[in-house]
Amino acid sequence: MTVTSTPTALEWSALDDKAVDTARLLAADAVQKVGNGHPGTAMSLAPVAYTLYQKVMTHDPADTDWAGRDRFVLSAGHSSLTQYIQLYLGGFGLELSDLEALRTWGSRTPGHPEYGHTSGIETTTGPLGQGISNAVGMAMATRRERGLFDPEAAPGESPFDHHVYVICSEGDLEEGVSGEASSIAGTQQLGNLVVIYDENQISIEDDTVIAFNEDVALRYEAYGWHVQTLDWRKPGEDYVEDVQGLYEAINAAKAVTDKPSFIRLRTIIGWPAPNKQGTGGSHGSALGEDEVRATKELMGFDPDQHFAVDDDVIRHTRDLVARGQAARAAWQEKFDAWAEANPENKALYDRMQERELPAGWEDVLPTFPADAKGVATRAASGKVLSALAPVMPELWGGSADLAGSNNTTPDGQPSFLPENRQSKKFSGGPYGRVLHFGIREHAMGAIMNGIASHGGTRVYGGTFFVFSDYMRPAVRLAALMKLPVTYVWTHDSVGVGEDGPTHQPIETLAAVRAIIGLDVVRPADANETAQAWAQILRNNDRPAALVLSRQNLPTVPRGTDGFADASMVAKGGYVLKDCEGVPQVILIGTGSEVQYCVAAQEKLAAEGIRARVVSMPCREWFDEQTDAYRDSVLPTEVHARVVVEAGIAQGWHSLIGNAGRTVSLDHYGASADGKLLFEKFGFTPEAVVGAAKDSL
Amino acid sequence: MTVTSTPTALEWSALDDKAVDTARLLAADAVQKVGNGHPGTAMSLAPVAYTLYQKVMTHDPADTDWAGRDRFVLSAGHSSLTQYIQLYLGGFGLELSDLEALRTWGSRTPGHPEYGHTSGIETTTGPLGQGISNAVGMAMATRRERGLFDPEAAPGESPFDHHVYVICSEGDLEEGVSGEASSIAGTQQLGNLVVIYDENQISIEDDTVIAFNEDVALRYEAYGWHVQTLDWRKPGEDYVEDVQGLYEAINAAKAVTDKPSFIRLRTIIGWPAPNKQGTGGSHGSALGEDEVRATKELMGFDPDQHFAVDDDVIRHTRDLVARGQAARAAWQEKFDAWAEANPENKALYDRMQERELPAGWEDVLPTFPADAKGVATRAASGKVLSALAPVMPELWGGSADLAGSNNTTPDGQPSFLPENRQSKKFSGGPYGRVLHFGIREHAMGAIMNGIASHGGTRVYGGTFFVFSDYMRPAVRLAALMKLPVTYVWTHDSVGVGEDGPTHQPIETLAAVRAIIGLDVVRPADANETAQAWAQILRNNDRPAALVLSRQNLPTVPRGTDGFADASMVAKGGYVLKDCEGVPQVILIGTGSEVQYCVAAQEKLAAEGIRARVVSMPCREWFDEQTDAYRDSVLPTEVHARVVVEAGIAQGWHSLIGNAGRTVSLDHYGASADGKLLFEKFGFTPEAVVGAAKDSL
Repeated sequence: MTVTSTPTALEWSALDDKAVDTARLLAADAVQKVGNGHPGTAMSLAPVAYTLYQKVMTHDPADTDWAGRDRFVLSAGHSSLTQYIQLYLGGFGLELSDLEALRTWGSRTPGHPEYGHTSGIETTTGPLGQGISNAVGMAMATRRERGLFDPEAAPGESPFDHHVYVICSEGDLEEGVSGEASSIAGTQQLGNLVVIYDENQISIEDDTVIAFNEDVALRYEAYGWHVQTLDWRKPGEDYVEDVQGLYEAINAAKAVTDKPSFIRLRTIIGWPAPNKQGTGGSHGSALGEDEVRATKELMGFDPDQHFAVDDDVIRHTRDLVARGQAARAAWQEKFDAWAEANPENKALYDRMQERELPAGWEDVLPTFPADAKGVATRAASGKVLSALAPVMPELWGGSADLAGSNNTTPDGQPSFLPENRQSKKFSGGPYGRVLHFGIREHAMGAIMNGIASHGGTRVYGGTFFVFSDYMRPAVRLAALMKLPVTYVWTHDSVGVGEDGPTHQPIETLAAVRAIIGLDVVRPADANETAQAWAQILRNNDRPAALVLSRQNLPTVPRGTDGFADASMVAKGGYVLKDCEGVPQVILIGTGSEVQYCVAAQEKLAAEGIRARVVSMPCREWFDEQTDAYRDSVLPTEVHARVVVEAGIAQGWHSLIGNAGRTVSLDHYGASADGKLLFEKFGFTPEAVVGAAKDSL
Repeated sequence: MTVTSTPTALEWSALDDKAVDTARLLAADAVQKVGNGHPGTAMSLAPVAYTLYQKVMTHDPADTDWAGRDRFVLSAGHSSLTQYIQLYLGGFGLELSDLEALRTWGSRTPGHPEYGHTSGIETTTGPLGQGISNAVGMAMATRRERGLFDPEAAPGESPFDHHVYVICSEGDLEEGVSGEASSIAGTQQLGNLVVIYDENQISIEDDTVIAFNEDVALRYEAYGWHVQTLDWRKPGEDYVEDVQGLYEAINAAKAVTDKPSFIRLRTIIGWPAPNKQGTGGSHGSALGEDEVRATKELMGFDPDQHFAVDDDVIRHTRDLVARGQAARAAWQEKFDAWAEANPENKALYDRMQERELPAGWEDVLPTFPADAKGVATRAASGKVLSALAPVMPELWGGSADLAGSNNTTPDGQPSFLPENRQSKKFSGGPYGRVLHFGIREHAMGAIMNGIASHGGTRVYGGTFFVFSDYMRPAVRLAALMKLPVTYVWTHDSVGVGEDGPTHQPIETLAAVRAIIGLDVVRPADANETAQAWAQILRNNDRPAALVLSRQNLPTVPRGTDGFADASMVAKGGYVLKDCEGVPQVILIGTGSEVQYCVAAQEKLAAEGIRARVVSMPCREWFDEQTDAYRDSVLPTEVHARVVVEAGIAQGWHSLIGNAGRTVSLDHYGASADGKLLFEKFGFTPEAVVGAAKDSL
């Protein structure tokens, strides 16, 4: 536990040692008190986290939202104490009482770090692989934001230059999403990203030899990273926590500005617990009273004291507050000079800090003339993006290798690519705005989360709807974190056609609607698509998914022939076209199936049956409306209701009740022309008419 | 297009060249005819696929289920023609008319290869990364099956020894799941796995430089694979399709028996199309008539002919049928000798071929005595596995690093691990049965699919329920393929407790129930758990998920106090405990919430309200029952119904109707003691009573 320090590089005193040891024991005590949690890594990573928080990172404990701060991501979220204890020691707002309340109801110290819940937490981690992938997004966002605000500054000289630091674990690197994101980081040459990989060779099933035998350093070299290895547990030698070496490695990492950096650090989990160090027993459960006691004795601490922090320790570590304020003041000078020299960019910065939309943005939204042949909603979405791009520089995004299919490339906009990564088809620059995720939906989702949690940009990412499954864990986290990211999920039904059942979403609408806090929007035509984008952009406190058709959909004549205005999309559900008089039956459709409702309405009218057509692009928005509004669309007294949607019926019965009918699918698709599939699978005006009569 | 052949190694004639060129043009013609599809790789991979099918693999076109066959997986499923054309040329059942019917309704040549749809397709591919991961499972299954049937045979001498070949694309290797599975393959030292990686540097967004700049060969070395690179497009040289070199590389790969093999093959997509070779234009759309014509002219074929196959070509390639029969006959001798020498193993083999359950298997199922304190259903599941393991050698499985939490390790059973990969905690051997997937849920799912499609074993895999999201794409494919794999998803609600919202499934039950063809089973107590396993094992034509509690659940007194027998679980839903007389209200619960229904029933009875308690562990099984049975459980005339489930209500209204009420959750969880969370979130007998009265 003693450290040879070289003052010329890293200032490190006996008090620092004591602070690190205090951190270890706080971790052991906290887990012991609640009876569950992960003490092992919090103990062995204490010197690493302490070095980062106290010696390396630029941050201001008094303002965890300071735009100039370095970012820290604890990808190994189960080791949340690693971070909580530094937030306490450094004076970021947590106190001893918070550590004592670990993992209990209402505490600021939940089992895993939660974004928006505890100051100083940059992203929610716990599901492994996500944090490091979020960090890739943060590093990308840093570059994009710099490009928006201060593109001409020399490297390292802009107030918008900072680093992103990550501590990750074996589990993070076993998860495929981290490999995807790390590959993207290599392509993007993210020199501001520094990952410290804690290799302790222990996971929940104990020795990782049973499942993880890679040469991880070599793998990161293959991704194009700058790689260093530090071994604190050299065979045959005493375990030495060489923080000096770590500090130097971090400096070496920062010196490499055209590659992300990977520092492989070999540690002993649970160090220095005399019996449980290096074992799975210290990973995911309390050490036990005896072992905590033995550890304290070994370290020269009083075994009868719990949560003990000497005054000199906390005084020493809380000096960070003053250092942070000094750093902040120096930054502020630089920032103010930039602001004065760049008033327009400063205005953009201010607007983006608040996630406000620019004046007049709605005026550029395209409208689409009535057209029976129509356009695919994915194509309409592309036109919306092209129209918005010039007025909303904060809007950026791309696709997981399906740009042309997802229509995610706004006309004439540059790609976000280093100079030597550009292609004939996609040029741009390091400050570009069109993202190329490769065939990596999961990393796309996680990177989007990192981008959105970093700053005020609005990011979108596209893939085929059925492959939303690949990115689902990241979507759930976006919803948990309430991040305003937008998914552009195209090819939304059996309308996909020839690619067949692996590519045709059936259960997918129900599955993504299940995600609490995600708005799922499936517009029925081009004008609904434009209004859907508009409403999504108005909301800046949640993620949204646009679910778009591959095939052309008729553009209905808005404002004439009884068709409602497309701005009603914002209500989530609205009367698209009413009958004369009180409706006998309500036909509810979404997306490409609304057209069958409209056609059925006419047929029913010819038979003297009054049917109302409701377009319901977003269940979540509809649910947010007043009871009165919802009742005006779906009057309680009209029991006959039909839902038409090319997916499973799950979830619709709450709206249509006992008498309701669904025109839906309860089987997978097939490989054939999409139009034919709609017919074969019973999506026709006649089928809707039949269901309506059944319902009556 | 000419190939220098070295007869001593690979026999290759001018007719082989002609057959390869014929294959290329069939691909171009087929896509041109239907107007969509992927011609490029089918053209440039024709020599590779032809070499594998005609020169390398052992198989019998007349029996694509032959147990001794080598397996082939086209991980790049979009290039389905690569495989269809070889199935046609080799005489596996496809004819020219099938190729002409590519991607049309009812054809045997759908857009992507579909397992169970077309003879000779070993697994459904298309969603990228899955095929290569399935292949890892197949290679593992090969070893496990050999261990069951013929463990003593010398390497390569058993009728159960064979190879698994894969063609994969850039997209496959960009997806994280392939990295996860490839790491497992390295740990498992799968010497029987040979992957050919087609590196053509083109994906849908054209040049892969924008998103994929790894040293992929180095990455596979890092995973512990045997790696070779073949470059058919050396800069400054003519493009040479060196099939001789490929053949030698495959032989070299086979010679390395303690590592999986990776052959990096650099090709030109769409070769030799004069204008579209090497471009994204040949990847995902028809070449166009002019380009097809130009290609034919260049190759010396008649541009006016389509789907042209010379007689000498098809005669030559269909010689494979005779060669296959000869190989089959030689194998049969070996097999018969083995069968005679190993009658018991032969009986096991026969039983497993039919996926029949062993005599008396139900007798070993544990029963659990009534116990108010009870046991966690995950613990009960562990006891079931321990009881079944000795009588069902075909049953194997493990966990994604949560063995102790998922209770997936049957008592005393050996791990499936090479000698030098074992740990103090997990010993075993290469023929063991406890699987260690590491923290790789997605690969676990994909590997399970490969295992199940390979042979007659029954495999299960565990993780926390919330992380079913990570493996969802593989679960969907299991359902599409109707593979009898079992997911052991534990920690199924806010009962997870302190780990907090990232670890607490809320929307997850609805999300997995949405997957068509997946049985989702959430037992209410230990005896329901045993019966759930029993019914899952009886079904051999579909995947199933067991959704299990972390916390103890009361074991109800079966057969006394009015409680029904646990065998009723097989019906999916049943009257667990009825009231006297006709019920006024029905309380429907699943899993850990059934106890609240039971308690509420008593309270309601005290108030003179007759309530029936229905346990509904599996919606899918209940839906399969007769109308009469379902009506007997949920009589139409009883409108007052309450569903109690610690998740979102989505999907339940179809069962409870307009008058129904739900005791459910519409928000994420929190970090605190699980018991406390149930109270805080309104899961109490009182809440159920309140909902019941509301519903009346």
